[in-house]
Amino acid sequence: MFVTLEQIRQARANLAGVILPTPMQYSRTFSEWSGNTIYVKCENLQKTGAFKIRGAYNKIVSLTDEEKRRGVVAFSAGNHGAGTAYAAQIQGIAATVVMPTNPVPSKQNAILHYGAKVVDGGSTSITMYEKALELHQSEGLVLIHPFEDMHIIAGQGTIGLEILEELPDVDVVIVPVSGGGLISGVAAALKETKPAVRVIGVNSEGAMAMYESLRHGCPFEVEKVDTIADGLMAKKPGEITYAHTTRYVDEMVLVSEEEIARTVVSLAERAKMVVEPSGAAALAAMIHHRTALKGKKVVVLASGGNVNMKLLAELVEKYTQQIPV
Amino acid sequence: MFVTLEQIRQARANLAGVILPTPMQYSRTFSEWSGNTIYVKCENLQKTGAFKIRGAYNKIVSLTDEEKRRGVVAFSAGNHGAGTAYAAQIQGIAATVVMPTNPVPSKQNAILHYGAKVVDGGSTSITMYEKALELHQSEGLVLIHPFEDMHIIAGQGTIGLEILEELPDVDVVIVPVSGGGLISGVAAALKETKPAVRVIGVNSEGAMAMYESLRHGCPFEVEKVDTIADGLMAKKPGEITYAHTTRYVDEMVLVSEEEIARTVVSLAERAKMVVEPSGAAALAAMIHHRTALKGKKVVVLASGGNVNMKLLAELVEKYTQQIPV
Repeated sequence: MFVTLEQIRQARANLAGVILPTPMQYSRTFSEWSGNTIYVKCENLQKTGAFKIRGAYNKIVSLTDEEKRRGVVAFSAGNHGAGTAYAAQIQGIAATVVMPTNPVPSKQNAILHYGAKVVDGGSTSITMYEKALELHQSEGLVLIHPFEDMHIIAGQGTIGLEILEELPDVDVVIVPVSGGGLISGVAAALKETKPAVRVIGVNSEGAMAMYESLRHGCPFEVEKVDTIADGLMAKKPGEITYAHTTRYVDEMVLVSEEEIARTVVSLAERAKMVVEPSGAAALAAMIHHRTALKGKKVVVLASGGNVNMKLLAELVEKYTQQIPV
Repeated sequence: MFVTLEQIRQARANLAGVILPTPMQYSRTFSEWSGNTIYVKCENLQKTGAFKIRGAYNKIVSLTDEEKRRGVVAFSAGNHGAGTAYAAQIQGIAATVVMPTNPVPSKQNAILHYGAKVVDGGSTSITMYEKALELHQSEGLVLIHPFEDMHIIAGQGTIGLEILEELPDVDVVIVPVSGGGLISGVAAALKETKPAVRVIGVNSEGAMAMYESLRHGCPFEVEKVDTIADGLMAKKPGEITYAHTTRYVDEMVLVSEEEIARTVVSLAERAKMVVEPSGAAALAAMIHHRTALKGKKVVVLASGGNVNMKLLAELVEKYTQQIPV
């Protein structure tokens, strides 16, 4: 039921030479703003522009030869689809990605560029999942789930090992949460290595499935999600990711949609980095004081950078402050 | 007349713990576009948002106690002023920065934030220089020149040592050029350590002082500069930087203003990084095929990230392509 440190270490070995080393950047500005020492772990600079390649590749490389011959199918509005397509391309196997009826063109193009086939999955995550299941059953494609899978969780958990190596005296790690695959792996890696590290998950007020699940005491399906953070739109966490979160995560906090949007702009203006709204949620929790932390050494995970450029320009127009560079 | 490897190594020791380690990011996209293997050295992620802190701090730390008591003056539209102000703040000495009459507010605020005094220097680099000289003579302030100084050159040269350590088999390093301090130090560090490394400098077609100087065979003052790259506006290189460039630099190439602007957008969209126009010039030379390089391992120096956010938004609106993420 729980991922082991051994599985995460195996994932790390699998990923060697496939993923990029991503920097952990200290920010004086964000440190001053939050009253803590802030480092940004830059998975926006990862291959495919997001951490998702870690789990997807670790899953695909673990398939049997027979499964590889059948090919894989993922359902995703973006980053998991790109991660799966890229991982499949490296492994030389066929990939199909079920996308929304009106996908973000840049995300669809990226997935096509990585050699995958794109299939229309309707307009919700539920219809997309159903389409992927149908392809699994009718064509025998192996379903690469975005979070509810031990290999996926172990792959994402490699970030936790990297954080501990780069900053052994880290006090707190803050992670954006959607279905929970990322925080499950990262928290397990951290807590099984150094239990004193505090792990905090972040939901948007517009998409609070994990927050509500913890409150209800079981994986809970929220009625709706409405958020600028298109990578945080899971309506319900999985059984496995819920279990990891209850076991390993110390706290879930919420950030507002405006706090996320403002943080995207602050990251561009002050940290010189393009981070997508989902990826800005963890830093948003720190600079908008959604935790009680003071004086701690904190790593905020910037999970991805695949923001539509027009949206970035709009957010800049709306929120840029022209405060000190 | 020429900076030595020993001086650059001393600068590196001086800078230890002061500057941030900046990553060198591989880019598959830019590699594909240019037909070479491209790494971006991310000085946009440096403290103060640009490499200038390296030279400025190395200069200031080398002053005598008596000079430190007198305080320093720099003239700068931005990054050198911020670097000087920040370095002076760390060293606890007084700094004055002569800025244009209508400075970019964010750059002025940054300099004020670092505790420096800002003085109006009129509207051109020549009136700013005269104002700084006046303060040097009337108040005894030590002039921190932006490029024509051995300590400044040695400080910028530390980037060359870092590149060689991070990528020992580098073939080519591409550097944006204004007054020439950056390329002088970087090229000296590279060539004195590994002569086979090719060093290429880049001027904008709107500001070609070093390019024209090499063509004329002496430091040449261009009639006008008109470029989006506000860090590349030197009208004439110095005697020292000209000498280093003739000795150590293999080639100067030009890029157009539109190529620079498009590259700023490509860096945001594809590399997930905010780089100012001056900082994008080196990559622009590669992805717009301004060199004859093919199949080489190339480091492009992204020298800074202090772009006005409104300008970034405008460039995105104008040039974003929504091609694969």
